[in-house]
Amino acid sequence: MRYQLYYWPTIQGRGEYVRLALEDAGADYDDVVRGPGGMAAMSRMMEAGGRAPFAPPFLKAGRLVIGQTANILLYLGSRHGLAPKAEAGRLWVHQLQLTIADFVLEVHDTHHPLGPSLYYEDQRGPAKKRTEDFWDERVPKYLGYIERLVSDSGGTFATGRRATYVDLSLFQIVAGLRYAFPKRMKKFEREIPKLVNLHDRVAARPNIKAYLESDRRIPFNEEGIFRRYKELDL
Amino acid sequence: MRYQLYYWPTIQGRGEYVRLALEDAGADYDDVVRGPGGMAAMSRMMEAGGRAPFAPPFLKAGRLVIGQTANILLYLGSRHGLAPKAEAGRLWVHQLQLTIADFVLEVHDTHHPLGPSLYYEDQRGPAKKRTEDFWDERVPKYLGYIERLVSDSGGTFATGRRATYVDLSLFQIVAGLRYAFPKRMKKFEREIPKLVNLHDRVAARPNIKAYLESDRRIPFNEEGIFRRYKELDL
Repeated sequence: MRYQLYYWPTIQGRGEYVRLALEDAGADYDDVVRGPGGMAAMSRMMEAGGRAPFAPPFLKAGRLVIGQTANILLYLGSRHGLAPKAEAGRLWVHQLQLTIADFVLEVHDTHHPLGPSLYYEDQRGPAKKRTEDFWDERVPKYLGYIERLVSDSGGTFATGRRATYVDLSLFQIVAGLRYAFPKRMKKFEREIPKLVNLHDRVAARPNIKAYLESDRRIPFNEEGIFRRYKELDL
Repeated sequence: MRYQLYYWPTIQGRGEYVRLALEDAGADYDDVVRGPGGMAAMSRMMEAGGRAPFAPPFLKAGRLVIGQTANILLYLGSRHGLAPKAEAGRLWVHQLQLTIADFVLEVHDTHHPLGPSLYYEDQRGPAKKRTEDFWDERVPKYLGYIERLVSDSGGTFATGRRATYVDLSLFQIVAGLRYAFPKRMKKFEREIPKLVNLHDRVAARPNIKAYLESDRRIPFNEEGIFRRYKELDL
């Protein structure tokens, strides 16, 4: 089956977790909104009523339209060898993905503490405060948890010897933090050697390597979730 | 099977979405941390290593320990008639629950825009700004989407004639907004008559009605997600 992914065409954003899974799986897919007429097609899907999704990303899989990043990965994981097939394993991997989703929201809040409707330029002061708290409290808590997981899993990846979609997402977290906060991340990486190793292992997977070198990978930029603002990276 | 729910004992918080599902289903469960030795038991579970969850709530179901609210509901839904059994319906209901989870995080951010580690009293100004944006932009967007869904579903509930765990969560959203923002919500309710009707239908379900009248239902308070601060309710 050929999938159609609908997501904003100029950012990695939440769509990137889906793109990484589709690419690693070698799945056939169209990144619809990056093609001609794509934006209008996405708008039509969202205004169709019925089971129209609340927001991108969403994935069309035959007659199914699946929204919410973690839900899309839940669907793709068991079909493409990126998650266990048994219920206990599927729930565990999904639970970790939802924890990553919470972290991603907190990353977004570092530059948008007053809400997603205002520009960054209108919330610089609060962004500084939120970013301090993020690096003092939240990053150590979340990434320390992940580091411990990789350590306890008995393998290279978060849940063992086989990579799941969670590992692809963790690659993206490390890559994103390196982009947005190069100084802070450089210092912090000594606390998370296993997670850094996991990142490198994912980056070296043949399909991911080819994807990262292709123009299908949109560069990080200041409209996505991971944004580089010098005044936040002290 | 008798379940064990682990969650903070003095707030509704995210655990409430699970409590509502367990109560509506008439399931046997222990609200562990509200019993003797419960807090120590929760700490032990979280520090156990291996597949220990990142944060409460989590549910013990036999040998399984399931974390993340939406993931717990995914597990309970198909077992207790609170979600469709077929994959398409299960994914659709889960997608809506994840959208509600996003909204719940935005509710929390109204009083904690600078992050969860600081006290409300240390972020009153930013909280006012975030709350304005929340009511101007976010509430109409989210609840307008839900109102349209109920309207298009051809039934009383979000996905049709049968209630799912999503409807129990939507009940909680309406109840919570009424508690936290009585003035603003009173005005806004005329925009969402179908959602208010859904709330009333859920509240009248025998098991929910009994639960709400029992002391198992913890009252709303200023340590939970929905907090009443007069200065935010203009």
